[in-house]
Amino acid sequence: MSDFRQKALDYHQFPSPGKISVELTTPAANVDDLALAYSPGVAEPVKEIAADPNAAYKYTAKGNMVAVISNGTAILGLGNLGPLASKPVMEGKALLFKRFAGLDSIDIEVKHRTTEEFINTVANIADTFGGINLEDIKAPECFEIEKELIKRCKIPIFHDDQHGTAIVTAAGMLNALEIQGKRIEDVRIVCMGAGAAAVACMELLIKCGAQRERIYMLDRQGVIHTRRDNLTEHKALFANNTDKRTLEDVMDGADVFLGVSGPDLLPPETLSLMAQNPIVFACSNPDPEIKPELAHEVRDDLIMATGRSDYPNQVNNVLCFPFIFRGALDVRATAINDEMKVAAVNALRSVSKEPVPEEVLVASNIASLTFGREYIIPKPMDPRLCKRIATAVAQAAIDSNVAQIEQLPDDYLA
Amino acid sequence: MSDFRQKALDYHQFPSPGKISVELTTPAANVDDLALAYSPGVAEPVKEIAADPNAAYKYTAKGNMVAVISNGTAILGLGNLGPLASKPVMEGKALLFKRFAGLDSIDIEVKHRTTEEFINTVANIADTFGGINLEDIKAPECFEIEKELIKRCKIPIFHDDQHGTAIVTAAGMLNALEIQGKRIEDVRIVCMGAGAAAVACMELLIKCGAQRERIYMLDRQGVIHTRRDNLTEHKALFANNTDKRTLEDVMDGADVFLGVSGPDLLPPETLSLMAQNPIVFACSNPDPEIKPELAHEVRDDLIMATGRSDYPNQVNNVLCFPFIFRGALDVRATAINDEMKVAAVNALRSVSKEPVPEEVLVASNIASLTFGREYIIPKPMDPRLCKRIATAVAQAAIDSNVAQIEQLPDDYLA
Repeated sequence: MSDFRQKALDYHQFPSPGKISVELTTPAANVDDLALAYSPGVAEPVKEIAADPNAAYKYTAKGNMVAVISNGTAILGLGNLGPLASKPVMEGKALLFKRFAGLDSIDIEVKHRTTEEFINTVANIADTFGGINLEDIKAPECFEIEKELIKRCKIPIFHDDQHGTAIVTAAGMLNALEIQGKRIEDVRIVCMGAGAAAVACMELLIKCGAQRERIYMLDRQGVIHTRRDNLTEHKALFANNTDKRTLEDVMDGADVFLGVSGPDLLPPETLSLMAQNPIVFACSNPDPEIKPELAHEVRDDLIMATGRSDYPNQVNNVLCFPFIFRGALDVRATAINDEMKVAAVNALRSVSKEPVPEEVLVASNIASLTFGREYIIPKPMDPRLCKRIATAVAQAAIDSNVAQIEQLPDDYLA
Repeated sequence: MSDFRQKALDYHQFPSPGKISVELTTPAANVDDLALAYSPGVAEPVKEIAADPNAAYKYTAKGNMVAVISNGTAILGLGNLGPLASKPVMEGKALLFKRFAGLDSIDIEVKHRTTEEFINTVANIADTFGGINLEDIKAPECFEIEKELIKRCKIPIFHDDQHGTAIVTAAGMLNALEIQGKRIEDVRIVCMGAGAAAVACMELLIKCGAQRERIYMLDRQGVIHTRRDNLTEHKALFANNTDKRTLEDVMDGADVFLGVSGPDLLPPETLSLMAQNPIVFACSNPDPEIKPELAHEVRDDLIMATGRSDYPNQVNNVLCFPFIFRGALDVRATAINDEMKVAAVNALRSVSKEPVPEEVLVASNIASLTFGREYIIPKPMDPRLCKRIATAVAQAAIDSNVAQIEQLPDDYLA
């Protein structure tokens, strides 16, 4: 067994199985405490909530609690291994919510026979939580699941594999374009992969200015074009009216490549077909579509990002999801809408342009970081992210009328 | 607003809303930690669990995690106020699981249209947890719900309002009978109330030796007898072939009265009809079927118990549920069966006969406690309960072949 594999298993087994626990926030030392925590005292908040459901935010943990919910149909790069096998990932997500944004978070793994049954199950337990982070659910079911749950629940529902990925990708991409001296409105974009993340990334880039007709999306059968049959609803949105059919066809003159597909799927020679000052985001994890050292050998005018922590420019959802929920929950938003997503993109972009605190360098094992080709996006260990993103998201929620609390306190996350 | 009411609301609002939080049990200080907790390290336990579902007990929080699940249809004495309003009670239960047995516990409130939908929802999320404590679900639906979930889930399912109440009641009752010099096989029992708790208490007393034909159960229409029409399945089990029709009829000569009904429903004069050395458990909460001071005025040969902490002999579920789950989870029992329930009864009985540690007296605000009329059952703050009950329950699980771990460690709960 490899060293890393053993270390990872040990990490999950010790000091106790798993990564999270539930703890008390109130005293429970004696009978007087228990008379408040449980019968008879607990009847008082019960009656308050029965009279006004919003009192649940005042008297229970709901308002700070995010459920991380999966059916295990698309676990990391591992595929459909079922709900129980996804549990370590979901607990890991819960750990990240707490570590980065102080949110209480619990994982729920859901068995189901049909998509409808999954939706019903989640909708039935949703009131328990302040928000729901959907995770590792395969396409195309994830689209319907998210859409239906948004309709049926009064709390924010967010499929992180789609929107978390899209937000971090868009922030990095817009910064990379700025450095390369290109405008998002002008660039030709190749998107390899047509799953949930790919679709969400392209939709968000379009909201940020990208032109739909300049996007070429590829699935396993090649370029998605208007003469293809049997396209799913979401692929059809990206069917390009083009004669180009192969990866080589669309890479020829492309400004941007985004890979959300699989390891080593981008042949190095295609890079030489790209326009000057190209951008390559090879986000397949843990093995990117092309290795950065290989890509840099072919092109020295390249900006490159991956999903890995051991290369510069890591596109990592943890840069977004803890904070977008923090902001959403703090103004009791009823949804996470496009305005809030774009606000998160802009906050991420601006943090990366500012001087990096010493503690971030230490935690990231890096000597220096300056906005540029090797630093287009903040590091996960950056403590500025929480306040900056959450504030921007919360304000966007207020401005777009999905917030139930209309003002942030002056000392918010101070 | 009364002082106590305000104190109870403040307790739930401060220092943060609610009573529980989720915390990390593993380090998350730097990028190396995160590479183990999340991608790429998390893939290792995922693969282990995909290969063997039991590995979830080794690498996730599952094995120490109890879900407290309700639909809010029978909240304390407050009735059907809906799932969200039940949340403070369920969080309170989660607090008690942690405080008394070190179990991680999270509440889930479930919306539903039909009983079947409730069952499906809980069954679909069950694998997330090591066990499920059902709570505050009204009869008769609770019977079907528990039965179906036991059938469909591989983890212990336990409706505390039924079985927790029954176990603590049986322990107290058997001790009271011993003090009064009576045998459970001989006594005539009046049970006022025919809901979930009443049925479970009577069934467990029968398992401990009570004779079904000597039990008289009453619902709102009086004595449940064989000539009544339209009895539910569970009431029908207690239909007595008798001419007695009223409370007075059955109290005449009765040895035991158990009230699980409502406040002040037992007229003091009926006590004088009872046999010598009678036993009255008036468990309606917070207001018992008869106030102890009133009862003692009528009978000085009485042993009396209530659900209240401010009188002697409190029948309180917290004496059982944290520990029965502790024992069940520690041997990975697939169910909580009758053998385990009876083991819990016997462990509770024996603890109450032993000298009481000083710390229990302090925590309970009582000068002294000796087994006898005013102390038939242990105090909730007794630290001996966890080891004693959990050990007995775990051993019973092993002996009755529902345990997946066949031996307790020598230093178990030491």
